[in-house]
Amino acid sequence: MRQPLPARPGTHISMLDTPCLILDLDALEHNINYLATYYKDSDCKLRPHVKNHRSPDIAWMQLRAGGTVNGVCASKVSEAAVMVQAGIPQVLIANQVITKAKIDRLCSLCRSADMIVAVDNEQNVHDLDEAAQSHGVNLGIILEIDTNIHRSGIQSTQDAINLARKASQAQGLTFRGIMSHQSIDPSKAGDRNDRQNEAKWTIKHCLDVKDAVENSGFPCEIVSTGETWSYDVARDSVGVTEIQGGSYITKDSSHYFFPEFQQAIKVLGTIVSTPRSKTAIGDIGVKAATLIKGVPEVEGHPNVTVTTLQAEHTLLEDPNEEFKVGDQFQLVVAMQDALVNRWDRYVGIRNNVVERVIEIAARGRHN
Amino acid sequence: MRQPLPARPGTHISMLDTPCLILDLDALEHNINYLATYYKDSDCKLRPHVKNHRSPDIAWMQLRAGGTVNGVCASKVSEAAVMVQAGIPQVLIANQVITKAKIDRLCSLCRSADMIVAVDNEQNVHDLDEAAQSHGVNLGIILEIDTNIHRSGIQSTQDAINLARKASQAQGLTFRGIMSHQSIDPSKAGDRNDRQNEAKWTIKHCLDVKDAVENSGFPCEIVSTGETWSYDVARDSVGVTEIQGGSYITKDSSHYFFPEFQQAIKVLGTIVSTPRSKTAIGDIGVKAATLIKGVPEVEGHPNVTVTTLQAEHTLLEDPNEEFKVGDQFQLVVAMQDALVNRWDRYVGIRNNVVERVIEIAARGRHN
Repeated sequence: MRQPLPARPGTHISMLDTPCLILDLDALEHNINYLATYYKDSDCKLRPHVKNHRSPDIAWMQLRAGGTVNGVCASKVSEAAVMVQAGIPQVLIANQVITKAKIDRLCSLCRSADMIVAVDNEQNVHDLDEAAQSHGVNLGIILEIDTNIHRSGIQSTQDAINLARKASQAQGLTFRGIMSHQSIDPSKAGDRNDRQNEAKWTIKHCLDVKDAVENSGFPCEIVSTGETWSYDVARDSVGVTEIQGGSYITKDSSHYFFPEFQQAIKVLGTIVSTPRSKTAIGDIGVKAATLIKGVPEVEGHPNVTVTTLQAEHTLLEDPNEEFKVGDQFQLVVAMQDALVNRWDRYVGIRNNVVERVIEIAARGRHN
Repeated sequence: MRQPLPARPGTHISMLDTPCLILDLDALEHNINYLATYYKDSDCKLRPHVKNHRSPDIAWMQLRAGGTVNGVCASKVSEAAVMVQAGIPQVLIANQVITKAKIDRLCSLCRSADMIVAVDNEQNVHDLDEAAQSHGVNLGIILEIDTNIHRSGIQSTQDAINLARKASQAQGLTFRGIMSHQSIDPSKAGDRNDRQNEAKWTIKHCLDVKDAVENSGFPCEIVSTGETWSYDVARDSVGVTEIQGGSYITKDSSHYFFPEFQQAIKVLGTIVSTPRSKTAIGDIGVKAATLIKGVPEVEGHPNVTVTTLQAEHTLLEDPNEEFKVGDQFQLVVAMQDALVNRWDRYVGIRNNVVERVIEIAARGRHN
């Protein structure tokens, strides 16, 4: 069953029904243009990660702005499929694709786009090769190297060399290079030197593996390492061809340490009850927002704090009683990609007026 | 953009693409029939809360089973609208409805169903009355009383009497009674006596307010108090006409203390990597499941624990190395209604085979 359209263009923000996912178009465009300019004259380019915004419309805004590899990365095959359907020419799936159903889907996408998938084990390379041959397509392979996140990924340089060899010899596959995904220790995030040192060693680890793989005779066309939090270090690391940048585009509150980006996504709510003194209850629950990485901030009301989000309610501590029933409020969350995945559409706002509604076409593409 | 159908009936579970939201139909039917039987010969009836399953198909299963008020409750107007569209004859919205847009939507639903809405302030009663009169409809009003949850709700008995008077005098409204929503302190949940004592005092508080309101001349046709965790106390509390039962139907892992209900919803995943000893990585992330109220349990593998869910990954500690790449696993989460809201459809399973796919038509109805 289709959701009704949340708003018509021209509607003033004060007339929106809530909760509502709003997207500040000026902030979005600022972020896109900032990074496009940053990478335009560099050897290292941006590969926008679509898992954050999940919208082919926004992916195209990123690619059109320049400074990119002219392709995106996605976290899931189903998410990639939405991008391919919208004409995106190249998608790197930055995860392992294991099940037969999903491998078949991936091979099918190779008919419409240049597809690359991450691998970290031999059997998977074998399965992907068999499927690609059986579909009569060619699939790109990139090695996932574990640096500091300790999730999936190849653990030793020798394993990387072995997998590169296997992928290079496979008839249905093309070995494209290596990638890694890193995270920043939150305690280091706020300190510029700590953050950059963390980025440097994770990227160096990845480049060391790349050198060993290339010295064994397997050239890496792609070295995809670095994320939003390390975008400045990655550009200046010789040998890195691209970064996978996702969260810069809307900026989580957990990325407070980047003043050069602007927070573009907010959840608009309404105060529905002020049952006790210094307490206000809003209509944004955890289903419509998220508590991952911390409680949301209340935009423009530094003295109001979110006590918690219940299933359907915001509990606000409001010491100065700034809010009364019927007032609107806006939440900025700490992890935008989980938030976006709860919603079907962005309501794009400029100067407090709805300019356009943008479909989150890849919402809920979990597999 | 519509999601592709996740599976055809007749498909064996081992062939499902993952992650996949699966619904054990035997367990679902057991839970529905258990509570229907429990309330069939009682004055107190069940009002199924649809915020948990968000599916009109399942709401109809509940109503057909009997023991109910022949209506449901919903948390949001948009959620209620989906139920009304499916022919559900009565919906109680167990929250305040404040904005003009939402009040208009609510009044419109009054043309197709018997609608009741919770209130806790005078201005809101005034706004609802004005809208109902302007739409030429009659809207039911129920007072929300705050007992132990300290969210919205009327704080004093005198305020309750005043609001009941105001609603009774309003031309567009009908005063229907009182409701409250309670929660159980997790530390008391596991002890049967503690749980029942907590339920007794919250229900007694609600009944005391009801007596005062009735003694002031405003009869309460509906006294809606009690939830899944207090379903047994509520039935035997004279004066309670109904309970709002939601989570019994699929059973969260946080409802472990009710052996009479069965866990019906699981998220099916696949192991995509075993990069280090005693570690397995699955393809279910926090976007496809939830960490609210705690990490999920791994069905049938008591020695395997979920370390955490990242955006797209399950991190599993697997001391006996029970899992290898490609194996399926199932997660049971601690809060099913947040989980369900991430998904468009249930894949209904019986004897490990897909029997039918059920639309979660009210998914994402946040307002």
